[in-house]
Amino acid sequence: MKALVYTDIEKVVYQDYEIPKIKSGESLIKISASGICGSDMHAYHGKDERRVPPLILGHEISGVVKEGKTIGQKVIINPLISCGDCEFCNLGSEHLCKSRALLGMNKPIVKEGGLAEFIAVPDTNLNNLPENLDINKAAISEPTAVSLHAVEIGEKNLSIPIIDAKILIIGGGAIGILSALIIEKIKKNNNLTLIEINEKRLKVCQNNLNSKVLLPNSKDLRINSFDLVIDAVGNDKTRQTAVQFAKPGSVIVHAGLTNSDGRFDFRKVTLQEISFIGTYCYTAKDFKQTINILKDGLIGDLNWIEYRELKDGAQAFKQIHDGTCAAPKIVLIP
Amino acid sequence: MKALVYTDIEKVVYQDYEIPKIKSGESLIKISASGICGSDMHAYHGKDERRVPPLILGHEISGVVKEGKTIGQKVIINPLISCGDCEFCNLGSEHLCKSRALLGMNKPIVKEGGLAEFIAVPDTNLNNLPENLDINKAAISEPTAVSLHAVEIGEKNLSIPIIDAKILIIGGGAIGILSALIIEKIKKNNNLTLIEINEKRLKVCQNNLNSKVLLPNSKDLRINSFDLVIDAVGNDKTRQTAVQFAKPGSVIVHAGLTNSDGRFDFRKVTLQEISFIGTYCYTAKDFKQTINILKDGLIGDLNWIEYRELKDGAQAFKQIHDGTCAAPKIVLIP
Repeated sequence: MKALVYTDIEKVVYQDYEIPKIKSGESLIKISASGICGSDMHAYHGKDERRVPPLILGHEISGVVKEGKTIGQKVIINPLISCGDCEFCNLGSEHLCKSRALLGMNKPIVKEGGLAEFIAVPDTNLNNLPENLDINKAAISEPTAVSLHAVEIGEKNLSIPIIDAKILIIGGGAIGILSALIIEKIKKNNNLTLIEINEKRLKVCQNNLNSKVLLPNSKDLRINSFDLVIDAVGNDKTRQTAVQFAKPGSVIVHAGLTNSDGRFDFRKVTLQEISFIGTYCYTAKDFKQTINILKDGLIGDLNWIEYRELKDGAQAFKQIHDGTCAAPKIVLIP
Repeated sequence: MKALVYTDIEKVVYQDYEIPKIKSGESLIKISASGICGSDMHAYHGKDERRVPPLILGHEISGVVKEGKTIGQKVIINPLISCGDCEFCNLGSEHLCKSRALLGMNKPIVKEGGLAEFIAVPDTNLNNLPENLDINKAAISEPTAVSLHAVEIGEKNLSIPIIDAKILIIGGGAIGILSALIIEKIKKNNNLTLIEINEKRLKVCQNNLNSKVLLPNSKDLRINSFDLVIDAVGNDKTRQTAVQFAKPGSVIVHAGLTNSDGRFDFRKVTLQEISFIGTYCYTAKDFKQTINILKDGLIGDLNWIEYRELKDGAQAFKQIHDGTCAAPKIVLIP
């Protein structure tokens, strides 16, 4: 098969690769569409210890069962593989399972990703594609589940109903815009602001959201004023921005992980009783709920997704890297 | 009157000082007992921008009304002064009021503290001393309210009942031991560990708690295993310890603020969905609940408090500073 292989720092190569072999309880999926995630970019920059070259990246995948129990079935893949029998899995928090693995990672165990023609996946990670959901759009399920999970962690920790909260989202990438769409269209909140530093991407967000979409240095932003801040970037600068704009008693949901260093205002977080909450992936329940959301078109037409051919994947990585790509999400079609 | 005045970095002087004048709505209190807080030590080290010399420190105060509406009434002072009419005060979160001030601070406004013979206090900050509560012990009300508030923030954010949680407290100072007593005796949790680096203080905690009391390097401590961690120190080292011992999905309550810098494992907090929550002071309701707790003797005999004369206050500050003081709390008697 053909695959886009991460071979070295800032290098992905479209090349021949062996078709994966399935084990008992797995299916071979012919991939229809596969998105590029921020965490794939993190790997591309050589900064993810869980994704080491050579490796096929990608974990936002839709496709058709080619070998396995349900040949011909169109599926959306939940890329999070958990043990199914620890205290976390038993409580429905599979994303906290100690032996969890994600497709497109090779530490602690090798699970080749979806930027390829085929992938082997445990049957328990397959979700049937609903009839009226486009199979290429369905690749957005995974980041939508991440966003739903992040928004609902914020909702759960707010002391007021989310519909009444003044909300800031930092970053207009996929998690940022998807969180914004969920907050606007599902949580029915009309007091949301999204900030984005890349003017091209800012435009795309403005065209697809009803909320305020601003540059981070906008004079319309007031410090200490937001009940909920979702940091969908997760670097030292955005964490500082999050704390700066957070109101006393507010909640910061840390939904990105671009870097893990840098200064942080522990003083304000303490004296103003701010909750800083990490969020990672989603539960299996979140994933199924997400598919229903997409099936019913609840977060819009998703026309901001840009589709490209897998063979042109190297250019996509490069453009995301150098900021010349406007789309919050590029999905590659093998 | 006599007062212990913070005159310079690492210097407090017992000296003559003008008796404060009361304004309308205030009472003059003849102080019975006044505790030294960790935040007073922070000021003593020249590290608190809100407490600048010259200043009378101290905000853990009991006494008797000398001038005012209720002359002769024995009182416990709630040292947190709030506006009473902002969105936070109206919701019962007076501790988040933007114009809040604390006795024993001089920024943003001057409020001389309780390490003196007399203090002027708004009548709304006076709580009558219950009959069967010793007036000197009553000075522990303020740190007990801080601890109750911190424990209940943890309780509120846990996904399991606090009685079932595996809990770690970092630091055996007043907030540490009081939080431990509240968790043991009021929350009825018997799965608590307290760690303390000072062996003298460790002994005092061991003598007054049923829980495990260990040195931080004890082999009995298991990383990634605690549902709730209360950091009652709040420096870069203890924050790292807190994250290290926190279980996936757990809660860290940051109840101290020794320093605001240093490294922090944002990666683990994110990938393991840990909630890091700042806590500061208490609400007026917490303060009243605390007085009832102390009145009913619910957290024990409090015999670990050490009482000294105010005139010897300089030595007390020095001994807390150099770690030769075993007691988690020194209360000074004018």
